[in-house]
Amino acid sequence: MKILVTGSAGFLGGHVARYLVGGGHEVKGFDAASSSDTAYESIIGDLLDTESVTAAAAGVDAICHLGAIGDVYLAAEQPQLAAAVNVVGSANVAIAAAEAGAKVVYASTWEVYGEPEYQPIDEDHPAKPDHPYNITKLAGEQLLLAADRLHGVPVTSLRLGTAYGPGLRANSVFRIFIDRASAGDPITIQGDGSQGRQFTYAADIATAFDVACQSDVHGIAMNIVAPDMISIKELAEIVVERFPTDLTFGEARPGDVPSALVSPALAEKILGWHAITPFAAGVEHLLEDASDTP
Amino acid sequence: MKILVTGSAGFLGGHVARYLVGGGHEVKGFDAASSSDTAYESIIGDLLDTESVTAAAAGVDAICHLGAIGDVYLAAEQPQLAAAVNVVGSANVAIAAAEAGAKVVYASTWEVYGEPEYQPIDEDHPAKPDHPYNITKLAGEQLLLAADRLHGVPVTSLRLGTAYGPGLRANSVFRIFIDRASAGDPITIQGDGSQGRQFTYAADIATAFDVACQSDVHGIAMNIVAPDMISIKELAEIVVERFPTDLTFGEARPGDVPSALVSPALAEKILGWHAITPFAAGVEHLLEDASDTP
Repeated sequence: MKILVTGSAGFLGGHVARYLVGGGHEVKGFDAASSSDTAYESIIGDLLDTESVTAAAAGVDAICHLGAIGDVYLAAEQPQLAAAVNVVGSANVAIAAAEAGAKVVYASTWEVYGEPEYQPIDEDHPAKPDHPYNITKLAGEQLLLAADRLHGVPVTSLRLGTAYGPGLRANSVFRIFIDRASAGDPITIQGDGSQGRQFTYAADIATAFDVACQSDVHGIAMNIVAPDMISIKELAEIVVERFPTDLTFGEARPGDVPSALVSPALAEKILGWHAITPFAAGVEHLLEDASDTP
Repeated sequence: MKILVTGSAGFLGGHVARYLVGGGHEVKGFDAASSSDTAYESIIGDLLDTESVTAAAAGVDAICHLGAIGDVYLAAEQPQLAAAVNVVGSANVAIAAAEAGAKVVYASTWEVYGEPEYQPIDEDHPAKPDHPYNITKLAGEQLLLAADRLHGVPVTSLRLGTAYGPGLRANSVFRIFIDRASAGDPITIQGDGSQGRQFTYAADIATAFDVACQSDVHGIAMNIVAPDMISIKELAEIVVERFPTDLTFGEARPGDVPSALVSPALAEKILGWHAITPFAAGVEHLLEDASDTP
């Protein structure tokens, strides 16, 4: 397939683009930032510019839409920026997909649910987002699914677990822990460390995009999460085992989302997808990377 | 109070601005379009420009935020425009209010609920918007309420019933029926006419904005609707009684929202607000206006 990947210069967009190239697809990247990746053609463009997105999408069979303000702290500081990129940008992707006759696979987030009413959270759970990040990500998802219903644009939304893998953003908890510990600095857990996440390996997420692009199913949102909940404290302990250093506890950061167990059952049923990378193996890759760094 | 009214050149924003002037408030209007209204100072500005909104809000005690793409058909055709004005615009209002230390009263809509799960719909009913109009209006509400929680900006969101009153938009069902019937043209009901709306008189809505501006309550969304459901067919029959003409039935328009009964009980309890204009009296004003037109 010919596939446009938005946000291809970002951590997860890059993983998805490279994975799709490896799967034999013809991939075009689209990002506001330039990428050093030479495995696929890249276009520098602006999601806020309808014509720029439409031109990039001409002739593709699918658009994997990962371009977003994905940093929750930046979204809190600049909600108008999150609203523009995540909502207006997604509306532009819907328009471009309609024009190209392309399917859209959207990078949504498990965080759209907000405060859990029951667990594990399935896709019927109410979505009550409470922060500029998840509010704008949900609105982007809803606009795309509305384009599926109103304009016949096939859309699948993947509500992703917390992604990790090589190349993670410098302000992610993984990178902070590993960077500090490998440099011999103490690690501070913000909050009591009991909060958990279904850390989902980037390659597993990339597989979900590939499968969703090729599936005839559309008009649906589904959870794409690894099954196990790992606490921040467990993560810190794994890192400290490899790079011994002090472990201390600090204040929780505002905007940090409480734990909630999310079910990946629908994705297994509909797409035959489940995460295959055990957490220990995924973290091992990151720790090896850090050990290799001089 | 000093109050900024966004969308003041629009139908409902104009009603709110004039009502607030009548109540002794010092009102400033803000709109992308110019207004012929001389009852208050008006600024021509762009909701998408953070600095323009912030400058307009400097020194005010409250912002009544009615500026929006309020036409559901325009929102369906140009979802990127609805996303920009309704979501980015609301984020900018939140920023401006934080800077000014002002309260925000937001014009949300009963349409945010989507398909009803039970009726009458209270504020605990899940919000599942399904159209670019209600999706973007809800995201604007959520961003403002997030600013209340995260940044201490007091916000009250009013989920308004279908507003009517003098000066209605030319493509509203009221204006279409009255304009056609008073010209002797037949009226076509789209759908079977059984769909109903809790048509809420503009002056009653303006009262709710006034009361909400002055209330200490914030961080909440509440329904502001007249209690009675009036079917489109009933409305058409009232119009035809005054201006006799043929009544025919056509196809439902895509984007038309099914009926759902919404409860105004919370607004009565919290703000002491309820609609006081009976439907017959409100329509009479519109019919008189139409009769006066040469």
